Amino acid sequence: MARPFIFINSAMSADGKISSVNRKQVRISGQADLARVDALRAGSDAIMVGIGTVLADDPGLRVKSKNFREERQALGLPENPLRIVADSRARTPPDAKILGPGCLIAVSRSAPEDRLESLSSKCEIIKCGVESVDAAELMALLYDRGIKRLMVEGGARLNWSLIEQGLVDELYVYIGGMIIGGENAPTLVDGQGFRESFPRLRLDSVERLDEGVLLKWSLAL
Amino acid sequence: MARPFIFINSAMSADGKISSVNRKQVRISGQADLARVDALRAGSDAIMVGIGTVLADDPGLRVKSKNFREERQALGLPENPLRIVADSRARTPPDAKILGPGCLIAVSRSAPEDRLESLSSKCEIIKCGVESVDAAELMALLYDRGIKRLMVEGGARLNWSLIEQGLVDELYVYIGGMIIGGENAPTLVDGQGFRESFPRLRLDSVERLDEGVLLKWSLAL
Repeated sequence: MARPFIFINSAMSADGKISSVNRKQVRISGQADLARVDALRAGSDAIMVGIGTVLADDPGLRVKSKNFREERQALGLPENPLRIVADSRARTPPDAKILGPGCLIAVSRSAPEDRLESLSSKCEIIKCGVESVDAAELMALLYDRGIKRLMVEGGARLNWSLIEQGLVDELYVYIGGMIIGGENAPTLVDGQGFRESFPRLRLDSVERLDEGVLLKWSLAL
Repeated sequence: MARPFIFINSAMSADGKISSVNRKQVRISGQADLARVDALRAGSDAIMVGIGTVLADDPGLRVKSKNFREERQALGLPENPLRIVADSRARTPPDAKILGPGCLIAVSRSAPEDRLESLSSKCEIIKCGVESVDAAELMALLYDRGIKRLMVEGGARLNWSLIEQGLVDELYVYIGGMIIGGENAPTLVDGQGFRESFPRLRLDSVERLDEGVLLKWSLAL
């Protein structure tokens, strides 16, 4: 089934954590890395996060640079890529920053109707999957409507779900110079975890950036 | 209080895991990295692991290279560095590979006497700390008996305990090209985790090795 090219971008501490045990957002990246992330956003057709990230961080998920937005418009593209939340039970708060024109919430068929109603004026809603969002089905739908390049910005459970289903092509990991620690702190890839047949990665590039290092990995075929 | 120079060496997956959710050892390093680790061992006065690592992996913790062992002997050193287990309740199995001459088990004063008896013929035992091993006290004792350079080879809880107490100077992290995943898989640094005042690291070097990358960090003072 045709699907977009899918890549994950994430920052983690030197010990693999994307936030602390209390789920509070930690500033891991520096200025150069934030500019890099903004460029990746501007070069994507859509940006996706999981509901956990919306509830924890309330990201706006728009392109910050005015130049990048103008370049997109000059190409006949919308100012910002489509913003997508994988949100099986429609828990996105009605005042979430991600909402508004250009936002799509993917829910399952078991999402409560009252929540869908309160969101329906603030975003597009797509139903796919029975109890939880069927990521493969969603990706096929997105591809059909022109999403060829999809950026995933976490969190740990969405990353797991996509990698586990073989739906990730590349991984950009910025590793910042700090220790967060904590057996309950979210990591780059959580979920159930692999017990064998660990997906292999190819290291495409290594680059020092700010006080840390940026690794680009490809999922081996 | 004077203490040894203390560094952690660990291999982790691209998502920060040091083993899988079922605690089974995963081969993350390649040949070049294993040779590097052996050289680090040979250059240390002592090598330390936590009891969790002994129970999960049963490491021998000796220098593998005959050349390195001979070089140590030529310098008047024992063939292998002192092997140390931080083992508050003396749970090291009596048939653990780490035991034998040149092994020291650090226990707390509440370790059961019967377990201490079964271990006492197979290693030296040091008591420090009431309920759990007092790492700072242990390090001072080790320093006094000539341990100036101590290598820590995990696991996740010992790493946490030492970093949390400000007892780590450097961190060698080999990142292998694989995803392990799992919210319950052990990471480089587990324990309770920091909630604020995250320890800052300085990135000393970045080196591609085997199919991954070796990062060397210093704990900022």
